[in-house]
Amino acid sequence: MMNNMSTEELDDIYTFAVDLGKQAGKMLMEAAQLRISGSCPAPERDHVQKENAVDLVTETDENVEAFIRSQIANKYPSHKFVGEESYSKGSSREYLIDASPTWCVDPLDGTVSYIHLFPMFCVSIAFIHNHKPLIGIIYAPFSNHFFSSCAGRGAFFNETQRLPLVRNPIPPMPENAPSGCIFSCEWGKDRRDTPDGNLTRKIESFVNMAAEVGGRSGRGGMVHGVRSLGSATLDLAYVAMGAFDIWWEGGCWEWDVAAGIAILSEAGGLVTTANPPEDYAHAPIEDVRLGSRLYLAIRPAGTSPTETGREGQERTVREVWRRVRNLDYSRPGA
Amino acid sequence: MMNNMSTEELDDIYTFAVDLGKQAGKMLMEAAQLRISGSCPAPERDHVQKENAVDLVTETDENVEAFIRSQIANKYPSHKFVGEESYSKGSSREYLIDASPTWCVDPLDGTVSYIHLFPMFCVSIAFIHNHKPLIGIIYAPFSNHFFSSCAGRGAFFNETQRLPLVRNPIPPMPENAPSGCIFSCEWGKDRRDTPDGNLTRKIESFVNMAAEVGGRSGRGGMVHGVRSLGSATLDLAYVAMGAFDIWWEGGCWEWDVAAGIAILSEAGGLVTTANPPEDYAHAPIEDVRLGSRLYLAIRPAGTSPTETGREGQERTVREVWRRVRNLDYSRPGA
Repeated sequence: MMNNMSTEELDDIYTFAVDLGKQAGKMLMEAAQLRISGSCPAPERDHVQKENAVDLVTETDENVEAFIRSQIANKYPSHKFVGEESYSKGSSREYLIDASPTWCVDPLDGTVSYIHLFPMFCVSIAFIHNHKPLIGIIYAPFSNHFFSSCAGRGAFFNETQRLPLVRNPIPPMPENAPSGCIFSCEWGKDRRDTPDGNLTRKIESFVNMAAEVGGRSGRGGMVHGVRSLGSATLDLAYVAMGAFDIWWEGGCWEWDVAAGIAILSEAGGLVTTANPPEDYAHAPIEDVRLGSRLYLAIRPAGTSPTETGREGQERTVREVWRRVRNLDYSRPGA
Repeated sequence: MMNNMSTEELDDIYTFAVDLGKQAGKMLMEAAQLRISGSCPAPERDHVQKENAVDLVTETDENVEAFIRSQIANKYPSHKFVGEESYSKGSSREYLIDASPTWCVDPLDGTVSYIHLFPMFCVSIAFIHNHKPLIGIIYAPFSNHFFSSCAGRGAFFNETQRLPLVRNPIPPMPENAPSGCIFSCEWGKDRRDTPDGNLTRKIESFVNMAAEVGGRSGRGGMVHGVRSLGSATLDLAYVAMGAFDIWWEGGCWEWDVAAGIAILSEAGGLVTTANPPEDYAHAPIEDVRLGSRLYLAIRPAGTSPTETGREGQERTVREVWRRVRNLDYSRPGA
């Protein structure tokens, strides 16, 4: 097992990962085109007739994961692999990533969007070593949005434009954040109508962020806009781009966020926990734990006349924490 | 003034509108690239330094509208023009569209997204005659999504793929709609924290649509996903595509929806009012009034063994009406 990785090794892995992401995205798009043209060969043709194309999509999901996994096994037989599909089939929900070189892959994020052929779906590939996501690849082939990063080499949109997009200079966080910010959030799958359950807590948090300043007993954040795309991975990519200022979410797994965290970190963003500590105004702002299932991301920020970029990000974290509720997501052994 | 329009005339106008949309989208993207590169010439350069690029965007918005308006005036001097920017500057909020040939234009929809350079912004151009939106053009240049339609000639994605995308056959509405549906909705600008105000009513409606079946006193709709893009125009385009099943919104103006309604209608969708009639289970489902500011759109639907596409759409309209609140948007003279 490698403890340190040379520049050449990492470069080699990055080149491989970029190519792998492109091929996997192409597979997703080809399968989508088959559904569009209605020309799937039997037996898949039957699936197309169904009300929604869930089974066909599951098949694509598994095929793409198997492809990615075998490509990695061929090229880097000593590396570990954690994939959404293979993980889901196991019985354990424990966090399996240790210090060894590990690939953490979601072959298809935004599955619901993919089923309905809404363009916000993607493949997500991260390479992690010593617990740090070093390489991130996110490819949304329908819109041809390709995000990539490698630790120390920068984060990029479509391989040519550095992230964040606006960087001459990088805008500071708005003075009255979350006012002036685009807030990205997801409704997720847990829709149980339980008193004070996750759905209720999420909605209360969303409304606090959105309501006029002064509203909601002083919690109103009057964000500039609220967006929900249905893909944690793409949410993080657009935070790295600088398009979304704040992303707050609970319930994802490591393959939903590893590539996005790699890209956002390399672009200069901050990722910490979604759940506000008791002393939210003063508690230390710690780096997110990849397996925590609770995420708050802030975009890359430049300095202003009164604070550094990091200070602006931390101020924004505390303003979000002041407005959101604790979410209840856990996992075995965590 | 023309009372009837020949096929040749309409073809000519369509060709002109497609080209106009492409040019306008290119202008939006070029202005975005200037902000990205930080290479705006003075005096715009000052704007770039600002926390958000609101002034610069307003300038782009006005420039693009002026361009569209002058191109139309040159080619069709007898046609009327209703544009978002010129309308906003006037004092009247009355509905100005009559039976004459009229262009209804939003040079930039998704303004907040454009300010933050989130890709979901677009130009939206509709041609209306005898109160009917006959031609619609929507172009989101960042993702290169181009939607167009002409009455009787079909609706298209990127000029080659007919809408809805899946059409062999077009899927019927899900049996238990809104379950199985992607629900598109927007938080909008009215964030007043008023008891039973629009924000409260919207959120209550969103939560009803999202919550588990059986939840919310039997109103839970358990939609498959909830999406918010920040652009009414693009929401309608994705409904026409078949990607979104339901879009429900209040507060837009005619330039936000005219092109989307043209494209969606031509693709086979249904558009009616957002506000449920008292007898929502039996009231006639009327075509939307363009200036009503209240919109409920359902995607194109195919027949199932038990109902026609239209029947499935109407069933879905009633299921939405059962779960949503009346919104309070009005206008002078309406």
